[in-house]
Amino acid sequence: MTSPPSFHLDDLAVGQTFTSASHTVDADQIKAYARQFDPQPFHLDEAAAEASYFRGLAASGWHTASITMRLLVEGGAPIANGVIGAGGEIAWPRPTRPGDVLTVVSEITDIRASRSRPERGIVTIRSETRNQNGEPVQILTAKLVVWRRGAAPA
Amino acid sequence: MTSPPSFHLDDLAVGQTFTSASHTVDADQIKAYARQFDPQPFHLDEAAAEASYFRGLAASGWHTASITMRLLVEGGAPIANGVIGAGGEIAWPRPTRPGDVLTVVSEITDIRASRSRPERGIVTIRSETRNQNGEPVQILTAKLVVWRRGAAPA
Repeated sequence: MTSPPSFHLDDLAVGQTFTSASHTVDADQIKAYARQFDPQPFHLDEAAAEASYFRGLAASGWHTASITMRLLVEGGAPIANGVIGAGGEIAWPRPTRPGDVLTVVSEITDIRASRSRPERGIVTIRSETRNQNGEPVQILTAKLVVWRRGAAPA
Repeated sequence: MTSPPSFHLDDLAVGQTFTSASHTVDADQIKAYARQFDPQPFHLDEAAAEASYFRGLAASGWHTASITMRLLVEGGAPIANGVIGAGGEIAWPRPTRPGDVLTVVSEITDIRASRSRPERGIVTIRSETRNQNGEPVQILTAKLVVWRRGAAPA
């Protein structure tokens, strides 16, 4: 048996890339998320969405972010201590639509060892969430807390 | 009868502030979001969370972002055409905990009329999500698409 790969700070390098599994989004998921967290007409109702800026049902950007996180946690960002973000920048160049198949392609763009806490560092990761046509629906540049081998909390 | 206030681009000014309603977070909400979108032990299980970096159950940052969006949509950011974000910067200075009562305090920090599309503009809004002690759990600086009066899509 082999475990999935799991990276500590020591194992990461700028330029390393990771690709997540895929997730298919449908209208029911878009509406269910919207009812709970972003109840605006263009996320809830096809007819209202047709008449809106989005010209058709569109997922909340925060729904796209939430799906992206799921894909990162389930192997798209195989960090040994978990995917712990301090923050970052996010952009939604186009909406996620019903039927879209999303995949997250990530690249390590910076690694900084902490001066005050040598057992850990801050890793910058640029995660592009792409639809089935390869078009980005979200670009997230996040700062993650990553531990050296043997130093992570349980 | 009066409608809730609803602001077009014409009505907004740098320095304007808005305060949302409040939302109380509990452990069940934290775990339900985590099961769906961020299934990591420190968001799912009290004992595992105690032993982790977070030293106790903590909401996913994306859950805090989702709750923030709900509070913005339900009056915290009373934009006439809806709260439509193109992207922004996000930081989580401390975790959201079970029992936290969250409120979003927002300030307009920049307004730019679009040159190519005079009927709309980009409004920068800094939204601080605070817990019951007034401590920020999230700081979001978002760029919103806002229309002039009479120019918004249906």
